[in-house]
Amino acid sequence: MTSIPNVIQELTELLSALPGIGKKSAQRICFYLMDRPREEIVRYAKGLIDLKDKITHCPICHFITEETPCAICRDPKRDETVLCVVEDSLDVISIEKTAAYHGKYHVLGGLISPLDGIGPEDLSIDQLVKRLDNVKEIILAINPSVEGDTTAHYLHKIISRHQDIRMTSLARGIPVGGDLEFTDEATLTKALEGRSDMNGRHHDQ
Amino acid sequence: MTSIPNVIQELTELLSALPGIGKKSAQRICFYLMDRPREEIVRYAKGLIDLKDKITHCPICHFITEETPCAICRDPKRDETVLCVVEDSLDVISIEKTAAYHGKYHVLGGLISPLDGIGPEDLSIDQLVKRLDNVKEIILAINPSVEGDTTAHYLHKIISRHQDIRMTSLARGIPVGGDLEFTDEATLTKALEGRSDMNGRHHDQ
Repeated sequence: MTSIPNVIQELTELLSALPGIGKKSAQRICFYLMDRPREEIVRYAKGLIDLKDKITHCPICHFITEETPCAICRDPKRDETVLCVVEDSLDVISIEKTAAYHGKYHVLGGLISPLDGIGPEDLSIDQLVKRLDNVKEIILAINPSVEGDTTAHYLHKIISRHQDIRMTSLARGIPVGGDLEFTDEATLTKALEGRSDMNGRHHDQ
Repeated sequence: MTSIPNVIQELTELLSALPGIGKKSAQRICFYLMDRPREEIVRYAKGLIDLKDKITHCPICHFITEETPCAICRDPKRDETVLCVVEDSLDVISIEKTAAYHGKYHVLGGLISPLDGIGPEDLSIDQLVKRLDNVKEIILAINPSVEGDTTAHYLHKIISRHQDIRMTSLARGIPVGGDLEFTDEATLTKALEGRSDMNGRHHDQ
């Protein structure tokens, strides 16, 4: 359609390439932005460039950061003897939101996936191994999937060489607020297996 | 949360202000963009600035455009005697997509809404009146709502002073592919009222 200005056609196309944004939403966003003050648009543009130029990965844990090492690695109040191993930085953010975890992290930067040509050497596993000296517990917080299980298995093999390190995984069970009636069999099975005494907690932390 | 880099927190906040984007999607977009090549990010940033700096409204029809007058107003093949009056530029784009309309447009830039303090003087109605000299038909393509009906009523009053101008509105009826059984009463009533002879068309164009 030649009647739509090129600038809008191009931006619509760019925006609709973003995850979760279709052609219609992209167009709606274009028209929304057109009516915003120029300084606000400049903030968007600057924010995007900053994202690319200022954000890097922490050399220790590989979490995204503006300063190296990252705020979590620098924090002396966080327990260095517990490492939570996750697939990517978004997982760190999710766990941080709970405010229930006070150890440190290690971001793998992906999962082992032979089909996609991703091997252990493509992830930050070497760096993880180098961090194990003072570690007492490794929490594997990896999503269950073929790739997740492969990665967990691989890590287990490597880390179990360090006999003094306890390896744990996140509890599986019925989500808080979830209904037993609508819980799938696999989850219900895990919930049964992981049942806890009502006068104590299953996992002692 | 201090553990998320400021750059990301700020961009996430900006993005979640966009229509149809929540906090979660905004975060997902941030992480998606972080992994894209720098030149692509620059294209996004440039596209946003261009949107603000290069797009203006056509001085004739008020449709968005890079050049003035806009491509539709400049097109000698389009019928100048028919004007389709719409609320905003997105409506023009929707109608253009049909490729079924060959007249020109007039974009009001909103609807009369006393509650929001928007009167006829805030819309491009003056400019519309100035365009009426050679016009034979005005198609009011305005969504039915309190504001839409108020605006249509107001325009009807003004335009009916020009007795030689035919005023039409878009047909209401069952959408193509729509099911009679699931059509609401108001639409069905309109569909009945606007019924057409099966060997001809109801609206001669």
